[in-house]
Amino acid sequence: MTRTARAFTNIALIKYWGKKNKQWKLPYTNSLSLTLDRFYTDTKLTIIDSDKDIVSLNHKILNDQENKRILNYLDTVRKLYSFEDHFQVDTVNHVPTSAGFASSASGFAALAGAINETKQLNLNRQELSILARNGSGSASRSIYGGFVEWIAGDSNETSFAKPIDETPKIDLVLLSVVINQQSKKISSTNGMENSVKTSPFYPNWVTLVASELQEIKQAIAKKDLQKIGEIAEHNAMSMHALTLSANPSFTYFAPETIRIIQIVKELRQKGIFAYATIDAGPNVKIICTKESLEKVQTYIEQQLSNVNTVIANIGSGIQYI
Amino acid sequence: MTRTARAFTNIALIKYWGKKNKQWKLPYTNSLSLTLDRFYTDTKLTIIDSDKDIVSLNHKILNDQENKRILNYLDTVRKLYSFEDHFQVDTVNHVPTSAGFASSASGFAALAGAINETKQLNLNRQELSILARNGSGSASRSIYGGFVEWIAGDSNETSFAKPIDETPKIDLVLLSVVINQQSKKISSTNGMENSVKTSPFYPNWVTLVASELQEIKQAIAKKDLQKIGEIAEHNAMSMHALTLSANPSFTYFAPETIRIIQIVKELRQKGIFAYATIDAGPNVKIICTKESLEKVQTYIEQQLSNVNTVIANIGSGIQYI
Repeated sequence: MTRTARAFTNIALIKYWGKKNKQWKLPYTNSLSLTLDRFYTDTKLTIIDSDKDIVSLNHKILNDQENKRILNYLDTVRKLYSFEDHFQVDTVNHVPTSAGFASSASGFAALAGAINETKQLNLNRQELSILARNGSGSASRSIYGGFVEWIAGDSNETSFAKPIDETPKIDLVLLSVVINQQSKKISSTNGMENSVKTSPFYPNWVTLVASELQEIKQAIAKKDLQKIGEIAEHNAMSMHALTLSANPSFTYFAPETIRIIQIVKELRQKGIFAYATIDAGPNVKIICTKESLEKVQTYIEQQLSNVNTVIANIGSGIQYI
Repeated sequence: MTRTARAFTNIALIKYWGKKNKQWKLPYTNSLSLTLDRFYTDTKLTIIDSDKDIVSLNHKILNDQENKRILNYLDTVRKLYSFEDHFQVDTVNHVPTSAGFASSASGFAALAGAINETKQLNLNRQELSILARNGSGSASRSIYGGFVEWIAGDSNETSFAKPIDETPKIDLVLLSVVINQQSKKISSTNGMENSVKTSPFYPNWVTLVASELQEIKQAIAKKDLQKIGEIAEHNAMSMHALTLSANPSFTYFAPETIRIIQIVKELRQKGIFAYATIDAGPNVKIICTKESLEKVQTYIEQQLSNVNTVIANIGSGIQYI
């Protein structure tokens, strides 16, 4: 049996920041994302007659160290679904590091999809979202297209994403501004854990997310672009306030991150639609409209010499190819 | 009658961020500072036969607009102490903008001291601290030298600073790293107000300050330099987390601010004593020891070309000259 699944990456507008259960990757709060069309992972799975899995990434066989996270995941899945087969996993990532997105969301969503198909588990999308979440929390959201909410839940069976609007007729485009810098020093897993354990503000983050989720869902229903942008920007900055107030304090911001935040404000002062969101790294993703996109891109390229910009539109859920 | 008072500026190690009463400048929390020896204001007061005050700053007569804050303050003081005299106020600020310190703390402390002397109000230092606070909250602390705590209180009479240790035998030196940049866009008054009103994390800030005050006072008593540095840095970063989580989000950080924060961490990784504190602007003040100071200064000058550094030691309370 050989099957290939394709899953797209997503950008969280209401961030996932903090696990209440590490083993099952259960978050403290719901989160809400937009699936993107530009960055995706294709994962081909073949059942092999072996007691070891073989994994290739971008046509290069990985060693056990590089593989560790995927091998652990496959062990978990074998236990959960009571089978013994081993796989050849051939993954091609169309999420270049230079685009400023993590590949774990699209990667584990594609892998979950490929397992479901290859092993004919007949999972529905909710079950598939759970399977993807077992690999990476944000992968639970990449099962669906458009706007997606991940319900925190309180057990493996109750923590999954669900679609809010899979094909929204909404004029939003994402511009990723990528800073040329070495990779982040604090993984999002460690960053979350430090924030949960040591930020005096974490309890209020949980309350904040609950109210901003309600607000952004109303704004999505009304297609209120400005409101969506405002809430997303505030939510992201509040997440970064958790890192700054962790003890010891840390930040994912690079000097250029601050400059891009300034630029986004300057653009709004000029009447150009632009809102910033930032994940666990120095790059800034700017929420634009089709109309503002070119102005935003031009202004950024004028102001900053050492960045790349990449455009992404709203994308769809998992596909089988 | 002519008298001259000199007051020094101070740096808050536990920040004052948020007024519960604007008219009386009553803060939500206590705060704790170190008075510095390097930056000060000399204010000469003369009672004049006029129904208007005349104010000069650095030998230049100010117009009513530039003066507004001082004239309002003098009106308040006349009302509080039931007198009608007007003054010629000659202020010389030895707090260059390029040193990265606000002059309002030393300025209003010196003015309060000069009023007390000129009008022979015979205020004790507690009453003098209250009088200074009426001009600028942080001025209440500049009445004393060394480590000073401002007690929030809940009325004009109960909100004043008191000395913790006026002549601490402790090996701390402050290095102010001044970024060459235009002045801040959001005043600390507005920044505080926005944080109090809109940051979902503000209630936890109040709790945090209470516990960090206890900890830093213990560390001061034990002369535990590392603990003092750690608490001061965390408190400052948490204050800036309040601006980031305000709605709309804002920050006093410039791109170079982030670079200096990175440098301070790099220095600690090299085993060099350095902790950062930041007020309502882009400049970073680095808490050093006499031993680490030169290494810190050298490293910063190697890494950054467009900054000035200024050294300050522990200073004394208000003086009459």
